[in-house]
Amino acid sequence: MIRTGYIRPGSRIPSENDIIKNYGVSNTTARKVLQEIVKGGWVTKIKGKGTFVRTANIINRSATKILSFTKNMRQAGLKPSTKLLDKKIIDSGKSTTISGRTYSLKNPVCKITRLRIANDTPIMIEERYISLEFCPGIEDENLEDSLYDIYQSKYNLQITQIDQSLQAIIIPDGLNEYFGEDYAIPGFQVHGVTFCGIELVLEIEDSIYRGDRYQFSVQATP
Amino acid sequence: MIRTGYIRPGSRIPSENDIIKNYGVSNTTARKVLQEIVKGGWVTKIKGKGTFVRTANIINRSATKILSFTKNMRQAGLKPSTKLLDKKIIDSGKSTTISGRTYSLKNPVCKITRLRIANDTPIMIEERYISLEFCPGIEDENLEDSLYDIYQSKYNLQITQIDQSLQAIIIPDGLNEYFGEDYAIPGFQVHGVTFCGIELVLEIEDSIYRGDRYQFSVQATP
Repeated sequence: MIRTGYIRPGSRIPSENDIIKNYGVSNTTARKVLQEIVKGGWVTKIKGKGTFVRTANIINRSATKILSFTKNMRQAGLKPSTKLLDKKIIDSGKSTTISGRTYSLKNPVCKITRLRIANDTPIMIEERYISLEFCPGIEDENLEDSLYDIYQSKYNLQITQIDQSLQAIIIPDGLNEYFGEDYAIPGFQVHGVTFCGIELVLEIEDSIYRGDRYQFSVQATP
Repeated sequence: MIRTGYIRPGSRIPSENDIIKNYGVSNTTARKVLQEIVKGGWVTKIKGKGTFVRTANIINRSATKILSFTKNMRQAGLKPSTKLLDKKIIDSGKSTTISGRTYSLKNPVCKITRLRIANDTPIMIEERYISLEFCPGIEDENLEDSLYDIYQSKYNLQITQIDQSLQAIIIPDGLNEYFGEDYAIPGFQVHGVTFCGIELVLEIEDSIYRGDRYQFSVQATP
């Protein structure tokens, strides 16, 4: 239940007695489970208070504020790095549909696949389809750098808006390996379109974030 | 991969040849898998175009606009209903932490657990802790009605803001049953705090949405 994200970081885990009562297991089993959880580093014991799911590693991301991965990680006190997994030119362009609206990059795009890493732990797989109309020659830049920095310093482009849809998924077997896990983990699938002016599509993004390391925060108003 | 949400509604599923090539299975296996997917109602065939994951049932929700479940379902063309599962008064109040800030309802609260349903399909389990200071006697109202309507018509309260965190989880076994599924499904765990004025906490919410039926949309700006 901790692995699935159901028992929330910071919350108290059930006591031995709770486990026996709620799950109909013996006290030997309950004790063994608790020992494994402690040994696995999933929890912190606080004297006189109980045992709590560790919170240190959950990264918060505001869903409404444009913020580079790099800055987001630094805010969280983590050291960001990036590994370029693949890069190619796609002549046929790219489309995506975000909350019922379809956006297209009609001309050739540069597709890059990157692994985004925080303190040696991969936490996001990112695919970006970048307009070669706005960014000619971007395929020759160092694509392990911050793209936002490249857009600005090399092409003088300002990002004005990002529209995204967030979906909750169970990360499928093949992709698990990127994250170094052999059990099922939850994930966010993020589809996005980045604008560098009104209706000017600069890039299209398809990313997968580890759901057990990330949370999105939002403010809703009337 | 459709069940986990990894192959996205609206996207084309791999062909028989793709399956053979990518997953190293025989053509009999590949054909059988495709037949099962078609029989299970997961996909729609479009002549000359391919086979696509059905999209009809994904509900979009703007994460930045306050909108009742009832109205959200109606916008999606679905018939909303609500089943009250539990109701009790908790004397010790309730706290929650949203992106690092802790919010508390210190006085007694009315805790309700409801199943929110769209066209006979349960898609959300909702726990709300409602301030009895702002809403005295709310436990005697019809709590299968829209709470937003009750807040407004009975207590003359306007909701000014909702702060939420969204986490991706794998819905644990016990809760699966509410959703009528015996396989693992992804989910959103939503923790929220609802304000009826600056710093005035009206309610605290802990909800679980079916991840295979819901997506959240957001707009980010600089």
